[in-house]
Amino acid sequence: MKKLGSQTVKFENPPSIIGTATIVGPKEGQGRFKDYYDLILKDSIYQEKSWEKAETKILKEAVEMAIKNSKIPTSKVEYFIAGDLLNQIISAGFAARELGLPFLGIYGACSTIAQGAILGSMIIDGGFAENLVAAVSSHFCTAERQFRFPLELGNQRKPTSQWTVTGAGAMVLSSNIQNPRITHATVGKVIDMGEADPNDMGTAMAPAAVDTIIRHFQDTGKTPDDYDLILTGDLGSIGKDIAEDLLKQKGYDISSKYSDCGVLIFYPEQDVHAGASGCACAAVVTCGYVYKEMLKGKYNKVLLVATGALLSTTSSQQGETIPCIAHAISIENL
Amino acid sequence: MKKLGSQTVKFENPPSIIGTATIVGPKEGQGRFKDYYDLILKDSIYQEKSWEKAETKILKEAVEMAIKNSKIPTSKVEYFIAGDLLNQIISAGFAARELGLPFLGIYGACSTIAQGAILGSMIIDGGFAENLVAAVSSHFCTAERQFRFPLELGNQRKPTSQWTVTGAGAMVLSSNIQNPRITHATVGKVIDMGEADPNDMGTAMAPAAVDTIIRHFQDTGKTPDDYDLILTGDLGSIGKDIAEDLLKQKGYDISSKYSDCGVLIFYPEQDVHAGASGCACAAVVTCGYVYKEMLKGKYNKVLLVATGALLSTTSSQQGETIPCIAHAISIENL
Repeated sequence: MKKLGSQTVKFENPPSIIGTATIVGPKEGQGRFKDYYDLILKDSIYQEKSWEKAETKILKEAVEMAIKNSKIPTSKVEYFIAGDLLNQIISAGFAARELGLPFLGIYGACSTIAQGAILGSMIIDGGFAENLVAAVSSHFCTAERQFRFPLELGNQRKPTSQWTVTGAGAMVLSSNIQNPRITHATVGKVIDMGEADPNDMGTAMAPAAVDTIIRHFQDTGKTPDDYDLILTGDLGSIGKDIAEDLLKQKGYDISSKYSDCGVLIFYPEQDVHAGASGCACAAVVTCGYVYKEMLKGKYNKVLLVATGALLSTTSSQQGETIPCIAHAISIENL
Repeated sequence: MKKLGSQTVKFENPPSIIGTATIVGPKEGQGRFKDYYDLILKDSIYQEKSWEKAETKILKEAVEMAIKNSKIPTSKVEYFIAGDLLNQIISAGFAARELGLPFLGIYGACSTIAQGAILGSMIIDGGFAENLVAAVSSHFCTAERQFRFPLELGNQRKPTSQWTVTGAGAMVLSSNIQNPRITHATVGKVIDMGEADPNDMGTAMAPAAVDTIIRHFQDTGKTPDDYDLILTGDLGSIGKDIAEDLLKQKGYDISSKYSDCGVLIFYPEQDVHAGASGCACAAVVTCGYVYKEMLKGKYNKVLLVATGALLSTTSSQQGETIPCIAHAISIENL
């Protein structure tokens, strides 16, 4: 039975994550997971002429590294599924040009890595490919320039602001059987509780995370006890508290095993205010720390609930509130 | 066997298109396919406060209409797969908020409807859903404002320019067996031959269309004779001629059954220069004219090759050339 309840699928032959790679910027490289990244850049421009070109380069190189780490030849990788935060997902599109792989562009804001893993798992479990790569990137400087202000202005950030992670994460999914594996996927609905402040994404996204987590438990019959670790994408410190409270109100106490990638990536003294965000936020934690600790057996059952805020500068300027989404995947050692 | 060659899949149980809908703007409603659209707007703002809100509204309504036309209840529609040209695909994201369906956002520029149909077909044939909807939108006024100039400036358009279609197209895909059906899909690679003029997309995209068409024939063993109609997305008059010539050079003469949605939508006297473009271009032709004529049996085997230019204003401003893609689906009465 591949369908469970209204929004969840259970993979018959759960696709394996056979290799990952992560590249991060210097600030991320001083954070909590510094020992788990494959490459820490010395600067954010990475010998390119623009931050956008640097973002494309780290995405492309993370994919190449993940394929290398997976120990399969590039010729066996059948699809490149990717997205990023930039207008028209140019980081993904230009990386696809360099990689030369059949390309499926996706957009779920900071939830994109989970969406890519879900679509990739469906493609593999559905029998349409044996190996493919799902990847995302984000970059503090490209995101600030596009969504907020040119960095040169030196604008102050609000206490509720989150810091876009500079980095890229890539995972090779395969029908080869090895741990860890993607066993379930819950595709989120768009939830918008009326929050309109683009400098407080955590508050906006928390209800979407809650909706998807509850739907996941209801569809699968699982409880928080079935997981070692439940990880939201980038709610940050404010959104994480809201999500935890809302879940408690609904009868789900996940506090003993719950954390948020946006809370974890930077140390508090790195002064990123409410935490980290960006497509790379959930991706580098999942493809770095979580994957490597699952290989060692520290975690055996992880629920990743990557969160995304589907606004644009245009929608905010036109007075719209922020539509949010969260997609969940169960990653398990079987 | 679901995999054919390197980029093509053959669906074991080809998903059916059980309902479609198209909504277009007034200019499109005076074009060649005026009798095939479900709704022709009286104006481009559609009682909304901005063109962007109007675009969201037509996308949402096209989806609702397609579901109604498919005669299944909305509660049986399991996924909403959609994208558009706007930054952060806000038309799709906000339509998803209104529709309340599990949402998978995609971006393939003007190729998006084919990408949605491919992913949707994989999800259905893979056994992960019984019914879902794939849809896209574009809007002349939102696209001009975002990619080129505010309309109020009254800028002149280059002879190579194409006119972004105002409209939305939606198709409900299902495991229910009825004609027409999606039998094959070829996922494109990004092709960039060095063209850099964002006012001449047809020239940039033609090689991507050619690459995917040849790959489709090589992977499937089919020839142009296996199709009644081969339709590219939005190469326009300039790109169509280039694609036809390039294919002839490679030994494929498709001229007797080949046309391009961008060439067909408007009459020459509607003065759109090189033709039409936009996500809605391939979508309203496929979901309107092609679908309805397939139901009548005028066409029984159609190859849709939707084309997309994966640039952004930022990439052009930074001197980048235009990466392009084309995704193909075979739609057949079996």
